[in-house]
Amino acid sequence: MAWIQHPLQLPAYSRGFHIVTHEVLAALPELAQFRIGVLHIFIQHTSASISINENADADVPADLESSFSAIAPENFPYRHTCEGPDDMPAHVKASILGSSLLIPVANGALCLGTWQGIYLCEHRRRGGRRKLVLTLWGE
Amino acid sequence: MAWIQHPLQLPAYSRGFHIVTHEVLAALPELAQFRIGVLHIFIQHTSASISINENADADVPADLESSFSAIAPENFPYRHTCEGPDDMPAHVKASILGSSLLIPVANGALCLGTWQGIYLCEHRRRGGRRKLVLTLWGE
Amino acid sequence: MAWIQHPLQLPAYSRGFHIVTHEVLAALPELAQFRIGVLHIFIQHTSASISINENADADVPADLESSFSAIAPENFPYRHTCEGPDDMPAHVKASILGSSLLIPVANGALCLGTWQGIYLCEHRRRGGRRKLVLTLWGE
Repeated sequence: MAWIQHPLQLPAYSRGFHIVTHEVLAALPELAQFRIGVLHIFIQHTSASISINENADADVPADLESSFSAIAPENFPYRHTCEGPDDMPAHVKASILGSSLLIPVANGALCLGTWQGIYLCEHRRRGGRRKLVLTLWGE
Repeated sequence: MAWIQHPLQLPAYSRGFHIVTHEVLAALPELAQFRIGVLHIFIQHTSASISINENADADVPADLESSFSAIAPENFPYRHTCEGPDDMPAHVKASILGSSLLIPVANGALCLGTWQGIYLCEHRRRGGRRKLVLTLWGE
Repeated sequence: MAWIQHPLQLPAYSRGFHIVTHEVLAALPELAQFRIGVLHIFIQHTSASISINENADADVPADLESSFSAIAPENFPYRHTCEGPDDMPAHVKASILGSSLLIPVANGALCLGTWQGIYLCEHRRRGGRRKLVLTLWGE
């Protein structure tokens, strides 16, 4: 049983959905040594999320951004408005989308489906650099 | 520490929410040997999901389908329309509902509550057979 | 590799979002002994959820409650109405928010971000005492 844990600070992204599969894999050189296990990706923020979605058509992240901004709109009667109109809807999206992913590992690779990519979902206009914690365990 | 990992291809389901607790358990004969652990269920698709919800009243899956189709409607101004009107809302639902479940294991059984069942959420009209990866670890 | 598993029954909460970080930590005296690992928090119900969100401003849980009640409203044409008008929207929220959290552990503590707290999301008016299963593993 081996445990690997790395912090990963992503570059700053604009508001929207961004594929970061490559960035995550580049931070995990040890992955190739795992015959079986799981990878946990945790985001240490409440106004950004991570998610798995379609990795091929650039229209998909655009539609995800517009869809989630319709589900959690800025023009809702929020009380928590002191941090700007994009803050409270960002918190709502964070709870809808979730703060972590868990992905099975087999034979040194993530068991992602053909069309699955890992997304950083930036809900703020100026969210800055987001911090992830990557934890990999198995044998 | 023992690790078990099995692929599980489900039969094709119609669009909607379907309880698959029995199918998952039938694929895990080793579960009885685990005193303590967790089961991870991962779906390798971006237009179907898995979720835990009420397992008793057949009206619940019907209401889940209508509710999520209201939250991510087909008549939204999507850009990604080349794969049909049910494709992009399926991707939105996939990120809302999530791509995996993690369920505690104790004394050879899943620690599900009385009313909890495992659902395959099929967001496409013709989604075909969906692939899961079941990973069970513990001792 | 060590495994810890505890049931935790929370006090009854009113409908809404409630921070329970302290209650969870108080139930895990063994946490300090883990150099690296993960904590799994599972809720054994289909009309309440757990989630991670902003832990500082009391307006945030109020806005989360109003936002999720707008996303899954009571005045939707549900079939499953026999358990009251707040029951089926509670099931919808349970699938949106999810039934478990997984949080990385390092040096005897949860790797939560500065503003992250653990929420019990009570979707019923009289939900009663909710049961969690806490599973902690690592080394």
